[in-house]
Amino acid sequence: MNKTRVGIINVTGYVGMELARYLQQHPHVELVSVTGRSAAGKRLGDVFPHLAGLDLTIQTELGDVELAFSAMPHKESAAVVAPLVERGLKVIDLSADFRLKDAGQYPAWYGFAHPQPPLLADAVYGLPELHRRQIAATSLLANPGCFPTGAILALAPLVKAGLISDDIIVDSKTGVSGAGRGLTLGSHYAEANEDTTAYALEGHRHLPEIVQELTALGGEPRVTFVPHLVPMARGILTTCYATPKETTGREGLRQLYRDFYKNEPFVRVVTAPPHTKHTWGSNLCLVYPTVDARTDRLVIISCLDNLGKGAAGQAVQNMNLMLGLLETAGLEAPAVYP
Amino acid sequence: MNKTRVGIINVTGYVGMELARYLQQHPHVELVSVTGRSAAGKRLGDVFPHLAGLDLTIQTELGDVELAFSAMPHKESAAVVAPLVERGLKVIDLSADFRLKDAGQYPAWYGFAHPQPPLLADAVYGLPELHRRQIAATSLLANPGCFPTGAILALAPLVKAGLISDDIIVDSKTGVSGAGRGLTLGSHYAEANEDTTAYALEGHRHLPEIVQELTALGGEPRVTFVPHLVPMARGILTTCYATPKETTGREGLRQLYRDFYKNEPFVRVVTAPPHTKHTWGSNLCLVYPTVDARTDRLVIISCLDNLGKGAAGQAVQNMNLMLGLLETAGLEAPAVYP
Amino acid sequence: MNKTRVGIINVTGYVGMELARYLQQHPHVELVSVTGRSAAGKRLGDVFPHLAGLDLTIQTELGDVELAFSAMPHKESAAVVAPLVERGLKVIDLSADFRLKDAGQYPAWYGFAHPQPPLLADAVYGLPELHRRQIAATSLLANPGCFPTGAILALAPLVKAGLISDDIIVDSKTGVSGAGRGLTLGSHYAEANEDTTAYALEGHRHLPEIVQELTALGGEPRVTFVPHLVPMARGILTTCYATPKETTGREGLRQLYRDFYKNEPFVRVVTAPPHTKHTWGSNLCLVYPTVDARTDRLVIISCLDNLGKGAAGQAVQNMNLMLGLLETAGLEAPAVYP
Amino acid sequence: MNKTRVGIINVTGYVGMELARYLQQHPHVELVSVTGRSAAGKRLGDVFPHLAGLDLTIQTELGDVELAFSAMPHKESAAVVAPLVERGLKVIDLSADFRLKDAGQYPAWYGFAHPQPPLLADAVYGLPELHRRQIAATSLLANPGCFPTGAILALAPLVKAGLISDDIIVDSKTGVSGAGRGLTLGSHYAEANEDTTAYALEGHRHLPEIVQELTALGGEPRVTFVPHLVPMARGILTTCYATPKETTGREGLRQLYRDFYKNEPFVRVVTAPPHTKHTWGSNLCLVYPTVDARTDRLVIISCLDNLGKGAAGQAVQNMNLMLGLLETAGLEAPAVYP
Repeated sequence: MNKTRVGIINVTGYVGMELARYLQQHPHVELVSVTGRSAAGKRLGDVFPHLAGLDLTIQTELGDVELAFSAMPHKESAAVVAPLVERGLKVIDLSADFRLKDAGQYPAWYGFAHPQPPLLADAVYGLPELHRRQIAATSLLANPGCFPTGAILALAPLVKAGLISDDIIVDSKTGVSGAGRGLTLGSHYAEANEDTTAYALEGHRHLPEIVQELTALGGEPRVTFVPHLVPMARGILTTCYATPKETTGREGLRQLYRDFYKNEPFVRVVTAPPHTKHTWGSNLCLVYPTVDARTDRLVIISCLDNLGKGAAGQAVQNMNLMLGLLETAGLEAPAVYP
Repeated sequence: MNKTRVGIINVTGYVGMELARYLQQHPHVELVSVTGRSAAGKRLGDVFPHLAGLDLTIQTELGDVELAFSAMPHKESAAVVAPLVERGLKVIDLSADFRLKDAGQYPAWYGFAHPQPPLLADAVYGLPELHRRQIAATSLLANPGCFPTGAILALAPLVKAGLISDDIIVDSKTGVSGAGRGLTLGSHYAEANEDTTAYALEGHRHLPEIVQELTALGGEPRVTFVPHLVPMARGILTTCYATPKETTGREGLRQLYRDFYKNEPFVRVVTAPPHTKHTWGSNLCLVYPTVDARTDRLVIISCLDNLGKGAAGQAVQNMNLMLGLLETAGLEAPAVYP
Repeated sequence: MNKTRVGIINVTGYVGMELARYLQQHPHVELVSVTGRSAAGKRLGDVFPHLAGLDLTIQTELGDVELAFSAMPHKESAAVVAPLVERGLKVIDLSADFRLKDAGQYPAWYGFAHPQPPLLADAVYGLPELHRRQIAATSLLANPGCFPTGAILALAPLVKAGLISDDIIVDSKTGVSGAGRGLTLGSHYAEANEDTTAYALEGHRHLPEIVQELTALGGEPRVTFVPHLVPMARGILTTCYATPKETTGREGLRQLYRDFYKNEPFVRVVTAPPHTKHTWGSNLCLVYPTVDARTDRLVIISCLDNLGKGAAGQAVQNMNLMLGLLETAGLEAPAVYP
Repeated sequence: MNKTRVGIINVTGYVGMELARYLQQHPHVELVSVTGRSAAGKRLGDVFPHLAGLDLTIQTELGDVELAFSAMPHKESAAVVAPLVERGLKVIDLSADFRLKDAGQYPAWYGFAHPQPPLLADAVYGLPELHRRQIAATSLLANPGCFPTGAILALAPLVKAGLISDDIIVDSKTGVSGAGRGLTLGSHYAEANEDTTAYALEGHRHLPEIVQELTALGGEPRVTFVPHLVPMARGILTTCYATPKETTGREGLRQLYRDFYKNEPFVRVVTAPPHTKHTWGSNLCLVYPTVDARTDRLVIISCLDNLGKGAAGQAVQNMNLMLGLLETAGLEAPAVYP
């Protein structure tokens, strides 16, 4: 079988390099082109020694590919992606530029007017557990944010079943790579180690994504989302709090989740509080639903690798769907633990 | 001025050793006796090189002191403390054995019938910000738990003012030293590093403490408390979510907190999300109250060093009050950062 | 093609679980049996959630396999391995029990008289870069220690070429998983984080292994080996210092190494100081030879993942050789970075 | 007693802020002025919340002080310091600008011609254990580098006694704060965590300092110095390897060190391999001398906090000497552990 030729735009960030790592192991696609401004002209393996097995030079322009991943920053990504879609390529955009259905949200949350509202309408939000069929049919995929992936997977079964009130709290804890490879004081080792803090309390950009997808499942969710930075490189643990419309037993709750995710290769409903480390380097999302019996409140915990199911792994899963490949191809490797 | 002679029972855990560190720097008391079973007979500085400045040998029995700290495990501590109180010593118990006013709670939460209900009635819950006067007058002080200190300081102003509904969520993130110096797989470096997880979802022992103190301030709080373990040695960040009875502005909220804590030497109301690392090694608690404007929900974040204001630092603060010393004596050193 | 049936004795330590992770991804062998005392009867995925993809129950006795890995502790391993070899199985022993050719060394270094000196003679020291042919022919393979792998690969080209004097210093820095999954104060997160220390200054058990293999290459090396514990889960960086018999240029040195390792799939001679993290989760060893021009001293740095090329990865590489498979089968995945 | 007025030039780096932390606790000096370009005009406590107890605004120009610390980068520091010395201030320079006696070394190691060779001649190298008398008499103190402090204290007794040959290896492991608060990819949390690497193999700037001081003690040391970066915020562990001129027993060696440092308040000769964490936040240096009995080689290990005895703590110790104060004033606090 001929391998499908794929490329990565902006391979030099954490998401781009993790895409390359996954694609290197993929049986049915071949990574033939990678771009990156700062490192253009260099061998990929010289910039990222762990990728030395890929015989590629970083280019300024994308080569001849059938499917492209864009790991460009938001706003810049839309500008790069539009012409590719017009040329008939399949595109998976890992920025936020095609995630929000309502173009009117971009100025408020991202500070720019969306340049391509019609494309926005065509784009599919790439959470396979909710939109598998549309993903398989689209040419433009908006890969979900890392926090939204964990939050939506944690809450979708309850919201869709209409079992909880609209008041939802999402308390997330993320590792530092989620903030990217750019240099900021907050990601300086000496500042981040031995520290935990909350941030973006005025409203994190991933909030409208969470609200959009939950709303589509039912109700008018009023979500308070507080992300926290904890000292680890990878991983997001999300603790969701919700009020059931009627008293729910723990076992019934778990069965609801098991049923919802029973055919999902990358969501596992677990029976003990999950550890981010059990997803390290993989495309897995673990979900743990439980009930605080004293207050009848529901507590749903999910965890994932922000660069795996939270970004590059999920993008490969989406690619598999878009190319008609086995959904799990290239994603079978278990997490690296400890 | 003669220094007051004090001692530490069970110096060999993290709380005990941190007490010794604080007391070494105290201008008005002298640490003259430390006990510990496993290390009895050894020089303190041989067991804990950072305490080599203290010229002490670890003993099996407490020597002649006027005030004793007990850093024994729960259940064992009550047995040790009772005779000391009878002998007229002032005692600060850092276990949970005298924290819960209702003796009936001990079997359910700690698995033993309380051996000294009358002593329980005498004991004062040592949160100076709420009980300063009683602390100054007591001979038996129950030093608060690390999570309750952060949660209560975060919520007290709102609960006392009757501004929030009873539904409260407390989401805490703690470093590993909070679990003690005992050896468990969960505190193994290779397991804990690069990992975040939730635990005690059936009900953490610190919950009744939180509920007891908030109830005393007003209302019938229904608290869901979920502690999380994050990869750091020290620090607790607690994020509290509450629903205001009526819409509250951010500035009014902040003023409420400023007023409540205006004379408190160890609680600082801050204007940006605080970092646990800013309290590292100190007795400080930082509190950040804010409003999620989209949902009108209140978010109150506190942070502290679990061995500082969460344990040994607060115990020294209580000692100062019990001995009529300046409340800040021996506690002036700023946090060590970065 | 039928897959070869393999098993792991004592899957519940870090080496055992890492073996299972590698074998799960192997195209030509099937892991059909895993044993472990403490967890016998449990599903492997319940004990190690990252291995839930393996449909196995932990047993007390090894099932029907053609090749067995023993991840038992030293002394116990020899007792388990001997009968398997007699039954005609191929065995890869990851303990130290068959590494030292001279049975007389076991009492001094490991505290027991070797129970099977004849088997010792049959065993092959499993460093493929030095003993590939013998490995392919043996039924009993002694998988090298983690420190020796890094030290020998760093020094072998120089020692074999007879270019350095016998005085060699090996200064290693290892992550905490190297000490195993057992519980010790030294591997407690609160003790190990933010700490670096040296240990085993009286003589580390891996020293005789290093000396044995270097001696076989030439000379009578007098090695000072000092291991250090640094706060990370995985990884060993080894810095070797040696005196050249005559002045050596940096480029000539590098060429010597490139030639020595030119056909090696898992040793890469690099042109900048390597990072342990570039080998994280992989079977790679990076080697960086250089010259301190001011003193004419040679400095050779190697790094690897102590659970990868330092243990389980190398064991799989050895298995591939013993079974006549492609040497890189199941080991192609790049390191997980960052 | 009137407190001496002191100031810090460039308080906004790690060395500057750590100086402020020490000075805040000092009984006999008052920190009255701090400068910093980027943060000029801001309250010190707003920039560094752990220093909120200091009621200071960051200025562009140093105020009226009797003694100034310069924590400026090298080259810039010399320009700032010279006029202060001329004005009669006592100055402690924490940069490298006055450490090397031979002005001719600056172009090669630091890339600039020294602007003030005469001042260089006046400056005293501020290692109290070697130059206490000169320090007490100088107005211009060159505070030693972090690596040299550890290396020189480890080696001085042997070099001065003439007991070792000139061939010396210094293998250091440092935490990330040693590289400063500036933003580099190497200090990004996601890169630095779970990583160890060597650097500066072409020659680290601290090498000439080490050589200068050892040479002054005797011999013509030929030092190979290799620094390594390990994932921790603070701490340096230095392992030195040397060849004794004649066989030395471990006990005699230890006695040599005990005698050499017997009156030193901040150097402790220990009997077990020391941990960097035992010096965390303090001015202590632990030294552990031992013999590798198999090779007769000497191994001397030292450790310290790179911001403590390796920078700010030592600067305060020097200040105490220069002002005729008790040498330990303000430096009594034990390390914070764990």
